[in-house]
Amino acid sequence: MPRGSNLPAVAGFNETVVLDQIRRSDDGVSRVELVALTGLSPQTISNVTRKLLQRGLVHETGKLVGGPGAPRTILQLNPVGGFAIGVHIDPVVITCVLLDLEGNLVAHSHLRAPSVAIEDPEEGIAAIAAAVDKLIVSTAVPRDRVIGLGVAVPGPVDAERGRVVKPPLMLPWSEFPLRESLETAIGLPTLMIKDVTAAAVAERWMNAENPSRNFVFFYYGTGVGVGMVLNDEVHNGASGNSGNAGHFRIAQDGPICRCGRRGCFSQAVRPARLVNQAQQLGLLDAAAATTDLHSVFGLFEQLVASAEEGEPRARQLLIGSVEAIGAFIVNVTNLLDVDRIVFGGPYWSTVEKFFHRELQERTRFSEIDNLSHSVNVVSSVVGKDVVAVGAACLVLAGTFSPHSSKLQIAPAAMKVGAR
Amino acid sequence: MPRGSNLPAVAGFNETVVLDQIRRSDDGVSRVELVALTGLSPQTISNVTRKLLQRGLVHETGKLVGGPGAPRTILQLNPVGGFAIGVHIDPVVITCVLLDLEGNLVAHSHLRAPSVAIEDPEEGIAAIAAAVDKLIVSTAVPRDRVIGLGVAVPGPVDAERGRVVKPPLMLPWSEFPLRESLETAIGLPTLMIKDVTAAAVAERWMNAENPSRNFVFFYYGTGVGVGMVLNDEVHNGASGNSGNAGHFRIAQDGPICRCGRRGCFSQAVRPARLVNQAQQLGLLDAAAATTDLHSVFGLFEQLVASAEEGEPRARQLLIGSVEAIGAFIVNVTNLLDVDRIVFGGPYWSTVEKFFHRELQERTRFSEIDNLSHSVNVVSSVVGKDVVAVGAACLVLAGTFSPHSSKLQIAPAAMKVGAR
Repeated sequence: MPRGSNLPAVAGFNETVVLDQIRRSDDGVSRVELVALTGLSPQTISNVTRKLLQRGLVHETGKLVGGPGAPRTILQLNPVGGFAIGVHIDPVVITCVLLDLEGNLVAHSHLRAPSVAIEDPEEGIAAIAAAVDKLIVSTAVPRDRVIGLGVAVPGPVDAERGRVVKPPLMLPWSEFPLRESLETAIGLPTLMIKDVTAAAVAERWMNAENPSRNFVFFYYGTGVGVGMVLNDEVHNGASGNSGNAGHFRIAQDGPICRCGRRGCFSQAVRPARLVNQAQQLGLLDAAAATTDLHSVFGLFEQLVASAEEGEPRARQLLIGSVEAIGAFIVNVTNLLDVDRIVFGGPYWSTVEKFFHRELQERTRFSEIDNLSHSVNVVSSVVGKDVVAVGAACLVLAGTFSPHSSKLQIAPAAMKVGAR
Repeated sequence: MPRGSNLPAVAGFNETVVLDQIRRSDDGVSRVELVALTGLSPQTISNVTRKLLQRGLVHETGKLVGGPGAPRTILQLNPVGGFAIGVHIDPVVITCVLLDLEGNLVAHSHLRAPSVAIEDPEEGIAAIAAAVDKLIVSTAVPRDRVIGLGVAVPGPVDAERGRVVKPPLMLPWSEFPLRESLETAIGLPTLMIKDVTAAAVAERWMNAENPSRNFVFFYYGTGVGVGMVLNDEVHNGASGNSGNAGHFRIAQDGPICRCGRRGCFSQAVRPARLVNQAQQLGLLDAAAATTDLHSVFGLFEQLVASAEEGEPRARQLLIGSVEAIGAFIVNVTNLLDVDRIVFGGPYWSTVEKFFHRELQERTRFSEIDNLSHSVNVVSSVVGKDVVAVGAACLVLAGTFSPHSSKLQIAPAAMKVGAR
């Protein structure tokens, strides 16, 4: 079972509860209100808030005059009291983000994954460490204010040991001590999470204005997968590997997939496969290399542009994908009774317009489905950094939430704020 | 969103916490230990345990001598301090169970669902009320010790209003005020839950010896569906309708299903359909009526017996189902990363031997699936009353768990124990 740790060095349970209440208050909150909100005694609130002020995690932003008693001092989260780093390791691009304590994106960088980084994990770690260092230096964030680092990786993951296990497109990283090496190279406590699950974490954290307690994040990348928030909790699964959708069987025949079975969902939707099919149909230059994932991306953009211009065979090819995605959405909605499907991932922005319109037309729920409520099909509010942002949010979540033990967290202890 | 209620009249939050700790202790627990286990003050524990003793929910079962201080009185759950009724309304049979406070099955009854009960909900309610009354009278359980009633129904459900919405095989019940009518007829606070979810509740509650935090209950009844426990919580979904598996699309063609689509899972596994196919193949008497669900049950038993005796076409027919179930299991495991699949439901015992053997042979996980852990495929520990037991467990869960608000609970207030 994945280990859960409540970031013990950040704060005790009560401090976490108080900090989270302060974060949730739009215009700040007084100590008297915190007593009411948390059920803790005035003495405890006084002690806890003093500690949080000392650490710079919250600050006093004014006084509320009115009502009985003395004026009340308003406490608010200090956005620059702490920062979190998120890293998304993808075979195409390595994304690094720096978030402040409120979850605002302070800076980001994109490193076109050099083949050497994929072929040699040691080189990869060095490249990531350099990118993270650059991010911190360029933003002039005090290093001792960086709480920790979250790293999101393609599955399958070995959550307990902080490794990936035979990820199809990053085989040299299999069994490499990824989390440990990052921790050593960068010097920050490091959490690891599967990429698609990180996307769901980000969407949940960043879309607090319009939350859903039950949604699925459909991640459209080199492969496809889903992250899930169920009953208001991020669903990691028994081993941190939930959300494997690529080998969902949607047909009884079709070409043999890498997994040895037929009818896999990914065969109908994977960009690389669509590009190959388009090449065979003469819709794309058959001589163009597709061994390199960067080239696939470019060819896929051409294919989508062609479909948007109305080329009938290009349209037909993509509509096949849309229909498969529509069937998948119906399946997942029926199974999980979610009320929202969020789309995102690196290839999503390319197909967003085309897929979205066709999906609405072709995703047919029937009376028999779980439709006592509507299902919203939307694009992620977070954008293309979504996975890296989710990995950073995981660090923030550990700082705020007394329930973070349900997230998948590295055993390393973390320290927060000025030390 | 389904309403959650914490059975407010049973006990306050602290009483629930203490009661749950007492329940979890195998050999009872002292007040001193309860202070340590709950974090509550000795004074609070003293007050709470006094109330629980007065209500007969716990009793003192001896004294522990040894260690420093005075001998400690041991508190244990009083199994006969409270009881819960579970009712499973199914188009074929109406099952009623009576559980004691520890979850032991005290008595059960099975009412072959008379067509009139399905065609006329008022008659159905009267029949259920009579069956429940008989159960209570026959066991001589004091009426004021019955905490409440849980009723499990086929979906789709309107959890908030306590109704079913166009259940395919119980259409006359659509929009009938089911929960309210039962509450009035029987005079017990009543909770409603979808049948397949109740099965998962039962399995979780009854298999405490060998728990899984992430499992799927595959319910093989007139239709198929799944109940889910994810991250140690029963997953109800946004509207209490999770677990609809029958219209899971597993193929791109096939006969048109009731839902208007093709390739639905239920077409490959539903007993009534397998019976029809067997009739067409001449494996079963083509003249036998299949409009009546009781007849389908008998014919299905004949078909399975024939396959077990080696009749090649009967085997082939059932193996088609097994393969579909195997593919479904692989899909769900990949999506949710569960480590156990539990099979049960009224038709399961008939096919258990045949399916189980063939499933193990035909459910092929590959290296690409989430198999950093094994997936156990097992039969329910609860047996054929599983759904009714789950509905009763829902009542017990509300009595014990401060987290029961995450279950789907009727707004009615409940009283417990001697009044």
